Amino acid sequence: MRIAELSARSGVTVPTIKYYLRERLLPPGEVTGRNQAVYDHRHLQRLRLIRALREVGGLSVAATGEVLAALDDPDHTSHHLMGATHRAVLRRPGSPGGHPRRDPEWEQARAEAAERVRQLGWLVDPQAPALDQLADVILALRRIGHPEIADRLPDYAETALPVAQWEVAYATAADDPAVMMARVAAGTVLGEALLATVRLLAHEHVSATETGHERPDQARPMSPTPQEE
Amino acid sequence: MRIAELSARSGVTVPTIKYYLRERLLPPGEVTGRNQAVYDHRHLQRLRLIRALREVGGLSVAATGEVLAALDDPDHTSHHLMGATHRAVLRRPGSPGGHPRRDPEWEQARAEAAERVRQLGWLVDPQAPALDQLADVILALRRIGHPEIADRLPDYAETALPVAQWEVAYATAADDPAVMMARVAAGTVLGEALLATVRLLAHEHVSATETGHERPDQARPMSPTPQEE
Repeated sequence: MRIAELSARSGVTVPTIKYYLRERLLPPGEVTGRNQAVYDHRHLQRLRLIRALREVGGLSVAATGEVLAALDDPDHTSHHLMGATHRAVLRRPGSPGGHPRRDPEWEQARAEAAERVRQLGWLVDPQAPALDQLADVILALRRIGHPEIADRLPDYAETALPVAQWEVAYATAADDPAVMMARVAAGTVLGEALLATVRLLAHEHVSATETGHERPDQARPMSPTPQEE
Repeated sequence: MRIAELSARSGVTVPTIKYYLRERLLPPGEVTGRNQAVYDHRHLQRLRLIRALREVGGLSVAATGEVLAALDDPDHTSHHLMGATHRAVLRRPGSPGGHPRRDPEWEQARAEAAERVRQLGWLVDPQAPALDQLADVILALRRIGHPEIADRLPDYAETALPVAQWEVAYATAADDPAVMMARVAAGTVLGEALLATVRLLAHEHVSATETGHERPDQARPMSPTPQEE
């Protein structure tokens, strides 16, 4: 297909496709003439993955490029790709941060994060970027005066473990390594969005039930009606 | 305390504090002279909450202002504040999106989202912004060719429900309404960060265990060592 059709089918504009080609997020098409190339279903599939990572996952172009590079590396196992995806996700705008890392207070929180995870008995690389993020969250909770929320870590862990088990099993069940890796990348980012969304819905349900908004129409005041917006 | 001490104790620079005062995120201090004011522990507590919402939660100044306005409204219940916090969280940079809402394809996904949540039997406002986000995620999964991940919604829901129950119970257990509301605001944003982080750690643990990286030192290749970075 020509670039115009690729654009129509992927929902990505032609200038953005050209940008992804220049940045090598997308492999070049087959050249068929001066300034002409054709693209196939692999380009379409790749563009959809880029779109999901960028627009739904909130990854930067650079972070997207790193995940795709891991995806294209034939030596990478699902375990390695998951590591690359984690590092990309943990650098997203909006990820916890805000405290200068590597100062003494942060180092103490980082050590506490490692110790808390060690107590869970989990196999986690001591250099894992997720431990840095856990240190950020522990420190943020302490700074706003709610350090006790971090004591809930074993409960959150118990909650997250079955989710992670079926997510990893789903990704590694694919026969085609490219499909498996796409599942890891998409599942890591979109699974997080799905879990976060369901948690917000559960908050509303629990809050509506416990505060006496027993019927859905009584739960309505939680959000503005369209007229009020 | 003077603004310099408030800055030192909160970790927020003086120009940023002045900006928050102008934007009314922070109430004015007590005026003690020309160009002089003193601040108390409530300013410090408020600054720490702003910092957590902004830097850890990733909220914009406008979104932070909306959460704080709900916090300051004496008529707002925890249920209302949770709604205000949800709306702020759902507008963060990095939140799912990317598909133009209100087009026919999105509307279909939105109806599917509402139907899937109805099947859970949850009390959720049909206008809830989290349902819009769920529609975004369903659509993104379909576009990248993994619509079946959305079929896991009941599993994610089962996972999220106990988390939401203890989070809401924790927030509403506070006697002081201001403390309760701060817990809702902080817990909604930081609880999400904590759950997301623990999920990444669980992925690593499950992946390391299942791919035969049985000992922590063998799990190490998932992340680069500092020398490699």
